[in-house]
Amino acid sequence: MADFKLTINNLLDSAVRANGDQKIIYKNLQLTYNSFYKNVKNFAANLVKIGVKPGDRIAVIDYDTINYMYCYYSIPMIGAVIHMVNIRYPPEILYYTIKNSEDTYIVVNSDFMPLLMQFKNMFEFIKGFIVYSEHGHENYQLDNVYYADDLLKDTDYNITPPDENDMATLFYTSGTTGLPKGVYYNHRQLVLHSMATAEGLSDDPILLNKTSILLPLVPMFHVHAWGMPYFAIMKGLKYVLPGKYEWDRIVETMEKEHVTNSAMVPSILYLLLQAKRGPEVLGKLKLKSVIGGAALNEGLARSAESIGMSLVTGYGMSETCPILTLASYTNDILPLSEEIKEKYRRKTGVPVPMVNLRVVYQGKDVAKDDTEIGEIIVQAPWLTAGYLKDPEKTAKLWIDGWLHTGDLATMDKYGYIKIVDRESDAVKSGGEFIPSMVLEDLISTVPGVGEVAVTKKSDEKWGERPVAFIKGTATVEAIKEHMQQFVDTGRIAKFWLPDDYIFVDDFEKTGTGKINKVVLRKKLE
Amino acid sequence: MADFKLTINNLLDSAVRANGDQKIIYKNLQLTYNSFYKNVKNFAANLVKIGVKPGDRIAVIDYDTINYMYCYYSIPMIGAVIHMVNIRYPPEILYYTIKNSEDTYIVVNSDFMPLLMQFKNMFEFIKGFIVYSEHGHENYQLDNVYYADDLLKDTDYNITPPDENDMATLFYTSGTTGLPKGVYYNHRQLVLHSMATAEGLSDDPILLNKTSILLPLVPMFHVHAWGMPYFAIMKGLKYVLPGKYEWDRIVETMEKEHVTNSAMVPSILYLLLQAKRGPEVLGKLKLKSVIGGAALNEGLARSAESIGMSLVTGYGMSETCPILTLASYTNDILPLSEEIKEKYRRKTGVPVPMVNLRVVYQGKDVAKDDTEIGEIIVQAPWLTAGYLKDPEKTAKLWIDGWLHTGDLATMDKYGYIKIVDRESDAVKSGGEFIPSMVLEDLISTVPGVGEVAVTKKSDEKWGERPVAFIKGTATVEAIKEHMQQFVDTGRIAKFWLPDDYIFVDDFEKTGTGKINKVVLRKKLE
Repeated sequence: MADFKLTINNLLDSAVRANGDQKIIYKNLQLTYNSFYKNVKNFAANLVKIGVKPGDRIAVIDYDTINYMYCYYSIPMIGAVIHMVNIRYPPEILYYTIKNSEDTYIVVNSDFMPLLMQFKNMFEFIKGFIVYSEHGHENYQLDNVYYADDLLKDTDYNITPPDENDMATLFYTSGTTGLPKGVYYNHRQLVLHSMATAEGLSDDPILLNKTSILLPLVPMFHVHAWGMPYFAIMKGLKYVLPGKYEWDRIVETMEKEHVTNSAMVPSILYLLLQAKRGPEVLGKLKLKSVIGGAALNEGLARSAESIGMSLVTGYGMSETCPILTLASYTNDILPLSEEIKEKYRRKTGVPVPMVNLRVVYQGKDVAKDDTEIGEIIVQAPWLTAGYLKDPEKTAKLWIDGWLHTGDLATMDKYGYIKIVDRESDAVKSGGEFIPSMVLEDLISTVPGVGEVAVTKKSDEKWGERPVAFIKGTATVEAIKEHMQQFVDTGRIAKFWLPDDYIFVDDFEKTGTGKINKVVLRKKLE
Repeated sequence: MADFKLTINNLLDSAVRANGDQKIIYKNLQLTYNSFYKNVKNFAANLVKIGVKPGDRIAVIDYDTINYMYCYYSIPMIGAVIHMVNIRYPPEILYYTIKNSEDTYIVVNSDFMPLLMQFKNMFEFIKGFIVYSEHGHENYQLDNVYYADDLLKDTDYNITPPDENDMATLFYTSGTTGLPKGVYYNHRQLVLHSMATAEGLSDDPILLNKTSILLPLVPMFHVHAWGMPYFAIMKGLKYVLPGKYEWDRIVETMEKEHVTNSAMVPSILYLLLQAKRGPEVLGKLKLKSVIGGAALNEGLARSAESIGMSLVTGYGMSETCPILTLASYTNDILPLSEEIKEKYRRKTGVPVPMVNLRVVYQGKDVAKDDTEIGEIIVQAPWLTAGYLKDPEKTAKLWIDGWLHTGDLATMDKYGYIKIVDRESDAVKSGGEFIPSMVLEDLISTVPGVGEVAVTKKSDEKWGERPVAFIKGTATVEAIKEHMQQFVDTGRIAKFWLPDDYIFVDDFEKTGTGKINKVVLRKKLE
């Protein structure tokens, strides 16, 4: 019996055989799966030729290009590990992750070479730089530079495939405090995650299927772009790469390629809707998108859905590959009114198959009453085994066989969870949690409110009290009036009302584009 | 790190936690997943109490009842193996499979007890009979009889879970010649098969999703009922068990429970459409169904689709768990005319994710021209490791790491395969294959043709020549006239035309309801 292992090699081999003429599109390049596979094999074999060994870790610093796509496959396929480097990190942190990961080679988009060359001496441990350029070769005065297009040249592909339990990917997750932590995944986890994601996204209203055309807007350095570069190929989809995030061009590409599906964080949805022809094209395409990474506030959701988009919230984290839940419809929700369904699509959702998820407070599952707040803990076959070289933080992540997400949530009668806070952001006032994300969501519906973040200040009497930071043109009076209405109608408790509303010109963001609440809390000290 | 293994235990545990209030329906019984799980755990723990050990093989002889559903889960969950016995086998063969499998216990529907008691002495190696009855307990004058309902009584569930590589299921596949062969699957294979099936069925036009309501019409003794008892629960679907196959009652149940999806072989579709309110109810429900097990002929497909049903062909075999392909739409097919799409839905289809499928003739992949004929060979993570205690037949099944299906097929330009014959049924005339299933399909469109089977006789000049056997009211002249038209329009070659058309009153069927071509060939000797 042949044991057909759960490897990226087998995923790609079976997918190409089944869908050889399907397309992968990057700018003017239209690659069939067959041509893509040929390039991946050449890239892989040439990596071995220049000296890459199984177990080597290879950093990739790039936008969402076809080159990144080759790396997603070819590096794991030779038993090496692809380290997806967060290109939004400041140089010091970017360097730290490459050093911590002990990378031996770096595949780098030529746009980032000046940055690396500035710190050339610090990268002496790197055996080779593989430069991907869309503007021809440049001489970097280094004798260990290779060019990515040379690695696509025909050569014999004669690779010993890795085991499904071999590490395949590695990347860093930036907490809001401290240095980033490395998380890692093996082949088996990536394949299982792909199967579960494809299945989860097939639910109503996303209804992803073999005829869907996908242009993901989750950066490829960020949690496997939520797994899309793997599951889209596994499923045989037409796949469109966005390249560098230039909104007007991306909107044009979406129109040209008849894109049906995407996935993105709320701030990218916001930017897309600001693009020149954004609302027109997205509406015409009736674009369906998963929204994750941060809560989708009601205001933004309404403007997207009013032009004909379908949105569904997804939830996961760097430590979970990422997918855990999707806010798709079950047959409890399907018959409900459009208004209620809209609320359900913005919940954190229900677990995808093979995710064992609990919401726990002091060791007990919370009641399914939409009120009790507990921490989300999970088991699934695709969670990171721990933090790289950090047994101490790993021991806090994995307790009694459950991965502790640090996210606080409620559960309703239909089993839908809704995240109300990160544990570290939670406001505990008089012994009770005040869910900052619920407040943020409500404040976001006030006309003239752009971005909003609710955090906490210490309080002698109550322990902690909520404070709202706001960017926009609204007035404090208007916001207070709105919030009072939510108290009057019983939607929120009176003691949840923020003590202060503070206007800012701009928010400081983390490496993954989230508002940095640590900075805000510091302001309140 | 907790390694969340791919076991039936973890599949059920995570599914129940996520969908505890979802329903499983059997006759008047409406069980929530929570209650079902409680019963499964009691059944499992009580099996251990009466003496079942990990590794034990337990035969189940039952219709598609709730009792069978308990067995599907509880037996593998204690590390034992469920042997799904084909209740359509004649007693001698049924006995052979139980003996060959070395079963230690038998779970049996009381309807089958008289049969077993007739051969009581032959079952002395059985440690216990667990009788499931819907009409109260009967005294069988045996001291090792237990009652299934007693096994549902509350007890402590304290089970050491099996490993994902432990054998979980076992059943026999009846070739048309020789004794049945045992095939077997471990937990991991069942879980992966569930994930792939759920994903495959989500494609257009089946579009299975969390709001689908499933009543499968594939017997639970037959290839895991195509995996439905596992994947439906994993996905959190409302699941309706058909019980004994009584068509009028099943149609009423479908109506009452608002069933949206089913799966069945063509002969069952035929019987459903003959049921009293069959066409009315199936049309009203717009029932979507996978059709597999045998080719769906054009005539039957048209009558089902004319009332509003959606059909898609699926392909697999006992040796493959079963799923391999589905004839869903890719984005090549979606824009084509309804007429062409109908043809595509009746092809054998395209591989589901993680199925590596080739069509090979003399070691080479056939051209994608819909004409060259080769054998389907496959790799996938859920194929049987071999035939139980039969290294010789196993060696013919697995050659060079590929499972050889023995099915002959063509492949078209879009990668859709179409089975044209079993290798053993193939007619090779003058060195060329004549695809018997293509002829059967065309003959089936002649008014007055009920069932049809094309087989072969030896021929001095050509080696073999095709002969058609027909049940129905058509005349030979009418059939010949029709077939000549297909030759005239170039749809088939002239030398494909059967030499003889022989009318029969009825066909002899195999244990799985297929026409037994071996018997027909013997008639021609």
